[in-house]
Amino acid sequence: MRITDLIEKKKLGYVLSNAEIQYLIDAYMSGEVSDYHMSAFSMAVYFRGMEKAEIAALTMAMARSGHMLDLSSLGNQSVDKHSTGGVGDKTTLIIAPLVASLGGNVAKMSGRGLGHTGGTIDKLASIPGYRTCLEEDAFIRQAQTNGICVVQAGGTLAPADSKLYALRDVTATVDSIPLIASSVMSKKIASGAKNIVLDVKTGSGALMKSLKESRHLAEIMVSIGKSCDRNVTAFITDMDTPLGNAVGNTLEVEEAIAVLCDQGPKDLKAICLRLAGEMLTLVHGGDVAYWEKEAAISLASGKALNYFKDWIRAQAIPNFQNQVSSIFSLRFVETQDSCLFL
Amino acid sequence: MRITDLIEKKKLGYVLSNAEIQYLIDAYMSGEVSDYHMSAFSMAVYFRGMEKAEIAALTMAMARSGHMLDLSSLGNQSVDKHSTGGVGDKTTLIIAPLVASLGGNVAKMSGRGLGHTGGTIDKLASIPGYRTCLEEDAFIRQAQTNGICVVQAGGTLAPADSKLYALRDVTATVDSIPLIASSVMSKKIASGAKNIVLDVKTGSGALMKSLKESRHLAEIMVSIGKSCDRNVTAFITDMDTPLGNAVGNTLEVEEAIAVLCDQGPKDLKAICLRLAGEMLTLVHGGDVAYWEKEAAISLASGKALNYFKDWIRAQAIPNFQNQVSSIFSLRFVETQDSCLFL
Repeated sequence: MRITDLIEKKKLGYVLSNAEIQYLIDAYMSGEVSDYHMSAFSMAVYFRGMEKAEIAALTMAMARSGHMLDLSSLGNQSVDKHSTGGVGDKTTLIIAPLVASLGGNVAKMSGRGLGHTGGTIDKLASIPGYRTCLEEDAFIRQAQTNGICVVQAGGTLAPADSKLYALRDVTATVDSIPLIASSVMSKKIASGAKNIVLDVKTGSGALMKSLKESRHLAEIMVSIGKSCDRNVTAFITDMDTPLGNAVGNTLEVEEAIAVLCDQGPKDLKAICLRLAGEMLTLVHGGDVAYWEKEAAISLASGKALNYFKDWIRAQAIPNFQNQVSSIFSLRFVETQDSCLFL
Repeated sequence: MRITDLIEKKKLGYVLSNAEIQYLIDAYMSGEVSDYHMSAFSMAVYFRGMEKAEIAALTMAMARSGHMLDLSSLGNQSVDKHSTGGVGDKTTLIIAPLVASLGGNVAKMSGRGLGHTGGTIDKLASIPGYRTCLEEDAFIRQAQTNGICVVQAGGTLAPADSKLYALRDVTATVDSIPLIASSVMSKKIASGAKNIVLDVKTGSGALMKSLKESRHLAEIMVSIGKSCDRNVTAFITDMDTPLGNAVGNTLEVEEAIAVLCDQGPKDLKAICLRLAGEMLTLVHGGDVAYWEKEAAISLASGKALNYFKDWIRAQAIPNFQNQVSSIFSLRFVETQDSCLFL
């Protein structure tokens, strides 16, 4: 195979075979294929698109380019959630304990901010002492014990995606749906969760501006997940205005806690219940309405909040645990005086 | 300016300003813009095209990236011919002495083979002792004395084009008309000739397969030439079959000599008279039919052949001059026994 022929083939709108896509990624990682080949290829994909089978092959080739996390010890309870990025999206901080409180297991890798959208890891890192990086066995152990562990996606997870993403970022080839879908899903597949709920943000504050392209992206990602034997549901949710009221890492943590206290902005609470309901349905089966109701009860009863506290305590550096409590208690009392934290 | 923004702009189909294109080439030469940027940009150009003003700006930026040859000492008689490449195209070997014999001055830079098409310099290099590389003052001096000098285009001539061409060759971005036109014309502009006749080969043996794309390329190259104050005419000529009968460097030299002896294949002779007629019209003004007739007389009288002999003698390594004569005499007698050379 010659890389120039593969670029030519895509440029002319032909479909690449699985073997060709596997070669492309393997050779890119070995250095045989250069950045200048891949940027031309990515631009050709921007204009020509890819068939679902090609996107699935690209996803799997990138997922397999590094370490594939094994969450089999968590059984079929492992469930992940991914947002394509929006402003004020702090749902992971709420959903993770909410789902864990009802028997899901959220052993999750998250990212830093991307473009103008904030990253879950940035928000969690604003909690003093929170360890965003754990060894794999510690990560799994905490997930087994607490039902939740959220760490920063490391360099060994789908490194081909990281390499290609960095290149796309400087060559104006980010906004290609096949490349976005394979990028997201390669990380999700490599992260190991059996069940995945995708939140495709759409609108002026999102990467996807129109409902049409958001639906297209959602459909493709669900189809990739199915082809990799994962249970995947996608939601398309509004990002014309920020989610909730707070924007900024610490402020968003505080707002997440407010929701866990069964308070906080209605829009944020509603989307969290909807996404958590779907995640629990994937894990346990049954009816979404039932699981949404259970989730609302968990919030109202303080059960989800307790899971949050235990999660943060478990993942904080041991000496910081008291400090975490006092800082959060103080901050939270200041801004939401009707609800005390820790 | 940010290169990523320029790629994005072209990707979305916008027109780049002169300043943006100048930045692109300057930054590419300085290393600030990488190959991976340029390959993505070139692929975007493949899909989106370029306006004539953009192509002219790209041409001039690449021409100015290196040494600009000054042929002003040859007055307005300097005339160049460029073929986009075909099989068996040995016209330069005939046209250069033909035009020189009628007062044109062919101080010309030519290339090696490109893809499946042969290069004039490869053909000339098959003449024992022919010096394809001369210092600039020797090049000009020979053109002043003999009316002809044909050397290999050096690395200082439009180096941005050489760099970009090498990149396009491995990233499947050769067949973009704006990029072909700017590549050809940047070398031609930097080569300094006041008058330029372009021979756009079309058909199964050429880079341009269809008449439509050949016409498009021809029109763009003429428009670039005009915007750079050069007299430019373009012909679209057939390359569904090789030109003449001979293919192969030495064989093509021999066939060229046959035409200079007023023999050889009719198709080859006809195109040489047509192109030479146009070149002489650009140089002297007047009627093409008149100059074609004069060119035919020069062939018939042996005048053009004498210019050829003097050219090759002048450009051969001094000690090789006798050897050139004997080798050519021998070879030529073997294959075309009705015409003796030298």
